Amino acid sequence: MADALTELLETAGLRQRIQKSLAEFLAMQVDGLDAIGDELTPVGQALQEFVLDGGKRVRPAFCYWGWCGAGGSDTDEIVTAASALELVHAGALIHDDVMDASDTRRSQPAIHKRFEQLHRDSGWRGDPASFGTSAAILLGDLCLIWADQMLLSSGLPGEALVRGRPTFDLMQSEVMAGQYLDVLEQARGTGSVEAALRVARYKTAKYTIERPLQLGAELAGAGRAVITAYTAYGVPLGEAFQLRDDILGVFGDPAETGKPAGDDLREGKRTVLAAMVGERADAAEAAVLDRCIGDADLDERGVDAVREIIERTGVLVDVERMVAERADQAVAALDAAQLDATAVQALTGLARAATSRRG
Amino acid sequence: MADALTELLETAGLRQRIQKSLAEFLAMQVDGLDAIGDELTPVGQALQEFVLDGGKRVRPAFCYWGWCGAGGSDTDEIVTAASALELVHAGALIHDDVMDASDTRRSQPAIHKRFEQLHRDSGWRGDPASFGTSAAILLGDLCLIWADQMLLSSGLPGEALVRGRPTFDLMQSEVMAGQYLDVLEQARGTGSVEAALRVARYKTAKYTIERPLQLGAELAGAGRAVITAYTAYGVPLGEAFQLRDDILGVFGDPAETGKPAGDDLREGKRTVLAAMVGERADAAEAAVLDRCIGDADLDERGVDAVREIIERTGVLVDVERMVAERADQAVAALDAAQLDATAVQALTGLARAATSRRG
Repeated sequence: MADALTELLETAGLRQRIQKSLAEFLAMQVDGLDAIGDELTPVGQALQEFVLDGGKRVRPAFCYWGWCGAGGSDTDEIVTAASALELVHAGALIHDDVMDASDTRRSQPAIHKRFEQLHRDSGWRGDPASFGTSAAILLGDLCLIWADQMLLSSGLPGEALVRGRPTFDLMQSEVMAGQYLDVLEQARGTGSVEAALRVARYKTAKYTIERPLQLGAELAGAGRAVITAYTAYGVPLGEAFQLRDDILGVFGDPAETGKPAGDDLREGKRTVLAAMVGERADAAEAAVLDRCIGDADLDERGVDAVREIIERTGVLVDVERMVAERADQAVAALDAAQLDATAVQALTGLARAATSRRG
Repeated sequence: MADALTELLETAGLRQRIQKSLAEFLAMQVDGLDAIGDELTPVGQALQEFVLDGGKRVRPAFCYWGWCGAGGSDTDEIVTAASALELVHAGALIHDDVMDASDTRRSQPAIHKRFEQLHRDSGWRGDPASFGTSAAILLGDLCLIWADQMLLSSGLPGEALVRGRPTFDLMQSEVMAGQYLDVLEQARGTGSVEAALRVARYKTAKYTIERPLQLGAELAGAGRAVITAYTAYGVPLGEAFQLRDDILGVFGDPAETGKPAGDDLREGKRTVLAAMVGERADAAEAAVLDRCIGDADLDERGVDAVREIIERTGVLVDVERMVAERADQAVAALDAAQLDATAVQALTGLARAATSRRG
């Protein structure tokens, strides 16, 4: 099923075309940095590797299909514009890793760890960890700025860009707001399902699906009906996508997810799944959850104990049902507007694949 | 003299108009945040206070005069577009304070300290300092994103915005590169005059003067000659501006600078001034510099000892000469293009005031 998503993302050779446009854009930016001074070479290299080595390219894919759905024809310009979303995402991830103090990202050292190591290897003065953090803040900022530049220099006409920008900007404000609510929720620990769902809506649903689709539509000059249909498709699908992530974070097979089993439990992630089980657990179960969730050294037995509670309380079945309902709702919403038939087929496939994936 | 700069920044009621457009834009953004959830109210409040309570508005002023110099007429739209530069700057400062671990900014707690305090006052779980850092990274990101949005929604026509964006983006890439070189220079400690001058060029000259002027010119549709003249004016003036800052950081009167005397010495700032005195000091002087520069508890006697060395080695006289030469060079460059006469007068005044200010 993970393959089904990957396959869909390959439609129209999309993945390779996104990769190519990112590689070309970054090569140009890195030349610009090198012209300032060769001390900036590690900055350029780190960003090229970070952006080009990983990622499913889900956001550019939705932007591309959002454009096609609104009747836009398949050009290199829209692929380049859509690829700019990967740079926004790279900036958000680099900053996120600093905030979470995560050591790795996609099996590689996080950017702040990479620059901490550069400091250490070079025998520079001062604290290597602070150097790493400073570098990561700046590299994340560069990605956000470059995202802008990539959209702008995509070759799309000026009036299309002016139409698309409000959505591009709104998407970024929303994801930052969502991140803040997430950090706040970790600190306040209300553990409510409502709070977790809201974080999912802003950090994932709008950011990953609704806004990328709408950006594509705005760039293509779509009318109100298409924009509204993309909300009706994107928000439930995005929530379903996040709920699937919640399930995989606890029940996923490491061979398919690429992450250790039960990793979300060790990190103490405040997911909708965790909030629901927290609400339903009896006193004995609550004690187990309290002990296990957020325990960085949680072993396999501990993971199994939590899984059992999630199943016993009926939360797993209910979250699976929420995923399915939202996926259906998303697919049904595609009928409401006069969308291009090929795009409807792709978006239907993406909805099915994204919510039934195993990694 | 500080008054002369302030007075010039007031020309055409500019300061109040910038303030008004920032206040209006931020009010709208804060409404947007509040609509997501009232937990975001402290985010909006902190950003409003941070942006509206301080700053000389130097960058918007140069952008405005860059526009006027290129023949643009005085409209509210250009003031709004120019004010977007204050949001870029707010983002850069918020992130800078995290990187430098600075506790205060403009006599107020830095953003990360403010949110650390919110965490502490609220009795939330986890580390208050990490919460503060995470919040500051996100608030800085929001400022960068909003800067974009403010420029876009300034009311200037689409074609003007498309013309101006490359400069707006380049300016941001350059300042981030300059910040990285600065952090790197602190870590590597080469202490060379050349390295310090390059940081001044990217962090100050291009960012504060050249690019804001050129942004104004591009928005007004200026030709090549104006853009070139603004480089010839902006880069030396920006360097002079930074060199004046270097001098004030060691010799400035606290009553006029608003900062403790000799603050740059305590912070161990790698300024051009510090690099020059480092190159000229004999063994005994070098020992004093080594002991004093970067000593957070340096007292008045220590500050005086360093001042004496800077004077004795002739560095103070030479840096003053560098300031004067660059200011002259800047003013002379204004003759090269057919610029609007009122703008030439204002830019000449700004050059004189910015390089002879005492605070």
